[in-house]
Parts: sequence; C-alpha cells; structure tokens
Amino acid sequence: MLNQQVILISRPEGVAQASNFALQDIEVKPLEDGEVLVRNHYLAVEPAMRGWIADKASYAKPVPIGGVMRSMATGEILESRHSSYKPRDLVMGWLGWQTFPTVPASAIDRVISEDEITTALGILGINGLTAYLALTRIGQPKPGNTLLVTSAAGAVGSAVGQIGKLMGCRAVGVTGGSDKVTRCIEEFGFDAAMDYRQRDLKDQVEAACPLGIDIFFDNVSGHIADSILPNLADRARVVVCGTASIPNWNPWPTGLRVERHLLIKRARMEGFVIFDHADEYQQAREQLRAWISDGHLKFREEILNGLEACPDALAGLYRGENQGRRLIRL
Amino acid sequence: MLNQQVILISRPEGVAQASNFALQDIEVKPLEDGEVLVRNHYLAVEPAMRGWIADKASYAKPVPIGGVMRSMATGEILESRHSSYKPRDLVMGWLGWQTFPTVPASAIDRVISEDEITTALGILGINGLTAYLALTRIGQPKPGNTLLVTSAAGAVGSAVGQIGKLMGCRAVGVTGGSDKVTRCIEEFGFDAAMDYRQRDLKDQVEAACPLGIDIFFDNVSGHIADSILPNLADRARVVVCGTASIPNWNPWPTGLRVERHLLIKRARMEGFVIFDHADEYQQAREQLRAWISDGHLKFREEILNGLEACPDALAGLYRGENQGRRLIRL
Repeated sequence: MLNQQVILISRPEGVAQASNFALQDIEVKPLEDGEVLVRNHYLAVEPAMRGWIADKASYAKPVPIGGVMRSMATGEILESRHSSYKPRDLVMGWLGWQTFPTVPASAIDRVISEDEITTALGILGINGLTAYLALTRIGQPKPGNTLLVTSAAGAVGSAVGQIGKLMGCRAVGVTGGSDKVTRCIEEFGFDAAMDYRQRDLKDQVEAACPLGIDIFFDNVSGHIADSILPNLADRARVVVCGTASIPNWNPWPTGLRVERHLLIKRARMEGFVIFDHADEYQQAREQLRAWISDGHLKFREEILNGLEACPDALAGLYRGENQGRRLIRL
Repeated sequence: MLNQQVILISRPEGVAQASNFALQDIEVKPLEDGEVLVRNHYLAVEPAMRGWIADKASYAKPVPIGGVMRSMATGEILESRHSSYKPRDLVMGWLGWQTFPTVPASAIDRVISEDEITTALGILGINGLTAYLALTRIGQPKPGNTLLVTSAAGAVGSAVGQIGKLMGCRAVGVTGGSDKVTRCIEEFGFDAAMDYRQRDLKDQVEAACPLGIDIFFDNVSGHIADSILPNLADRARVVVCGTASIPNWNPWPTGLRVERHLLIKRARMEGFVIFDHADEYQQAREQLRAWISDGHLKFREEILNGLEACPDALAGLYRGENQGRRLIRL
C-alpha cells in the first residue's frame, strides 16, 4: 500500500509558499510494536506551521528538510499494535500531511466520536482550546470588561469574542475587509467590529472602546497592534497569541515601544502557547461542547480537497483568503 | 516667615532642564484646620519626576505650570492643626521642593524616626519599596533563577540585585561605565555585571546568562532592553519599572518588536508603579529594615546642598552623574 506525503523541501524566507513542499509516495511498512497505521480523513492547516518549519527552534523542534510536514489530523485506525487503539477507532493526533501515516501510539491525542471528525481539529481542538484557555488564563475576563480581539473573524478570534461575551465582556473585533466586519457582528455577535484597512485604526479603536481596553487578545502583532496598545485601560491584560501580520522575523521587525504603555497602565503582556496546557484540555473541551450544543458558540470551517491542496493552503492563510477554520479533506 | 519654593515654569521637551524651573519666595500664611507647617530637611530627586511634569497625565496628574515641584521630602513639624501630628515630629510625605511647606495632613505619609531622615526617601522609601515589591510581586524570584537588572548600580537596581541574591537568585547587572560595573560586583554583590557602553551587549548578556534570563528587571527600556529580551528563558518575567534610557516619548520611539519573544518563551512583561502598593509598604519596610541591620542590604546616598541645587539635579540623573540615591539637604 502506498502512503502519499507532503514533504518539506526547503525553508521559506518569511511565509511558506507551495514551492517549499513536494509530494512523494512511499510504501507502507509492516507495523512495529507500539505503532498504529491510520487512514487520515482531515488534515489541519495552521498559521503556527510557519514556526514549525523555520530553521530556528521556537517552542517546537523544526520539521527537518525531507520530513513529512507536521500537522494534526483526524483519521481512522486501520491496524494497531498498541493496546489502547483498535481498528475502526476514530482518532485525532499528530498524524502529519499524509494519507496513511504509521506512527507511534504517543502521536495519538485521543479517540474521538464521528461527529468530531472536523471539529476535533478546530473548535473542539487547537482553535477552541486556545481561545478558551488563553482568554481565561491570561485575559482573566470580568463582567463589564472591554475585550478587543484581532483577526476577529478567524477560527481563534471568533471564538474568543463569543466566549468573552458569554463571560460578560463587551467584545470588539478588528478584522480585514467589510465582509469580515459584518460577519463578526452578525454571525459571531461582537458588539462592534472594524476594518484595520481603513485609515486611522487608532481613532476607530478609541471610538469603539471609550473606557479603554481591559483585554487585548492579539493574533496579529505589527502595525495593527501598535495602533491598539495606546488604548489599553489600567491593569489591562494583553494576550500574545499570534503574530500573523508579520511576514518575516528576519530581519527582526521594529514597532512602537511597549514599555511606556505597560508602565503607565500597569498592564501585563504575556505569550500563550496552547501545548503548555494539555492538562486543561479535557475540562476546556467539555465547556466548549456545552456552549456549542446550546447554540452559544458558532464557528466556520472551510474544507479544501485532496493532499495536493496542502502546499498552497498555508500561504493562503497569509493571503487572508480562508473563510473559516481551514482543513483538507482526503 | 518666608517659604522658598522651586516652581515649574515650563514643560520640557524630553528631559527636564534647570531652565524649566525657577525659585520664588512667598510668605507663609496662618494654618487652616487640618493643615501642618513643616520645615523640610531632605528633598527627593526622582527619575519619575519627568512624568509628573509632562503635559500628558500618566499615572499621576501633571504638576501645573506655576506650581511647586512635587516631591517627597522629610522634615519636622513646626506647627500643626491636625490631631495626628505635633511640633517636633519628624515626618515623610509629599512636601514638595520648598523650605517651609504648609500642607494638608493627608500629604504626610508617616512619622519617622531620626535615623530615617534620609533613608525614608530611599532604601526605606520609594526605592527600596519599589525594588522589593516589584521584584517579589511581578518578578516572583525562585532559588536558582537568573535575575538581570538594568541601571544596576542605581538606587532601585542595586537593591533589586541584593534582594534577588537574598532570595536565591543569580544576579547579573547591566550598568554604564567600568566604575559602576566594579561597584555592582564589589559593593552590591552581583554575581556578574557588564557595561552597556561596550560593544555587543547582546553577546555579553548571552555569555553572562547561559541558561537565559528568568527575571529581567528593567529600569531603562530602549536599545539596552532590545539587546536583553532575546535572552529570556522560558516563562520569564519582565518587570517594566522605568524607561530611563528614553530621552523623549514624543515622537514615540521604536524598537525591536517584543511579541515573538513573549510568545516563544511564554514570557510575561508587566508595568509596575509603586504607588499602587501602599497597603504593602509596612510589611515591605520591616523586611528591608531587617536586611539593612543584618548588613545584607547596602545602599548609597548622594547628598546635594540647598534648594538652589534642585533645578539641575533632575537633569543630572539623566546625565548619569549621580553616585547613589540623590537627595537635597536644606
């Protein structure tokens, strides 16, 4: 049997392009003890993948050149030599951009139900968990707080806004384009939303947040963040969750200094990486599931087809073209 | 009786110069109920005064043009119309740059003993309290942590390094000039110290902190901070205590973006203003007093003479000329 894989063939300068990847077929080998063979159904496409393929270690080891592109995926166990899994189990885990991964059982995160085959990679997976845990652990929402979210129509941002509302915050979204502004308000229930491509984002933010921003949940960094930080309220919490607006960290970009904002407002700015919080996933997932079934937490998925869609799917995120949590169906 | 005062006559662009101030004499008026008349003995000169005379409100209201320069001072009650104070009491409070202030009793912080007449403005006052409370509350030192302090030979920085050592940290100081490097190590007991004026501060920091920086206690901001932030350890805490290296915030200065450092290291950066922590002063002061009497906490004071020394004393701090906690003796 052949396993088709997406391989990293070169490291990008800045955003990964389709040309950094290639497809290859390899023969599936017999399983060793402790391994499972999976047929992948859905593959994730993450903004964070940029960090995983950079040549510098960040919080994760870089994917090696010639290695299968790292990703989470859902699939079905075909064959198992580990006691925790049996054929026909549906699972979610670090299965990579490939059709028939053979992995050690430790790569499996959990067994999932059939109705989680996509959501385990999105609202009940990395995106929803990030939104809920980063917002509650660092943002510490209190009723009446003003919560401003960047990339507000995205998979994480849209969940942050809705969860903030459920916790009594006023939710303000910053996004790109009038369609997404409308979506933030009409679909995700933000109290206000604005388009960063319009002029004077700083003035727009000031007008939308007359009492200042208590929680700034930032997925983008860059000039957008620079326009928002002057409007922090006293004791504000800034969640540094992503840096999507920065195409390249080499050379290291400059921006307005943050120290005086933090000092005058006695504000706190803190980085969040979801993988540090594995011991909280289960509780968080139960909460998210409850909100979804109550109709309080909405989400969008955008499904592309076939492994051959993978190489360009990542670059597309940075072109801002995705219309929800981007997944690849095999 | 005449009260001689230092008056703010214009707002500086950037650092305050002597020319922003003038001296004037006014007649001391009879006390009203609730007021006290004080003879000032020592006046404080703070880097933070720059913020108090800027035209934009920061954490404190600006000193008005024509108003007496705000400062803490120690002195002796000459006359009292408030039941908490009586003549000959020594006190510390917001008494201003003047010889014979008449103030409401609420301007008095506390009655002090004779041996605190200078230390109440330094190691047992704003500097020591800032060092102890900012380090413990935001820095959260743990035994074995690497603590890096900027402006390490200064009144706050030297106390931070020593307190960090008392709490089991390895203390690394960054300061300007070889004399101050020597002072950090020999007088204040830092494990290592370096001169930021030497080339390649980033390399110096990397060499002195091979395991990364767990606590970065920053009094300066600017390029110095930019060279230090890349060396944070995982879960680092950055205490934003001052921005002494920035001569002017108009136009707002730029620097290397911090988001990626905070994200990769899951680090936290937080501003500290001592006046938020008044309910902890007493406990902190007892701890500082115990360390001083044990010989574990050393400090330097630099005493200038006469009210006429005030106007240039503040600019001198930014010229880096002070040799310890700068006070004016009247």
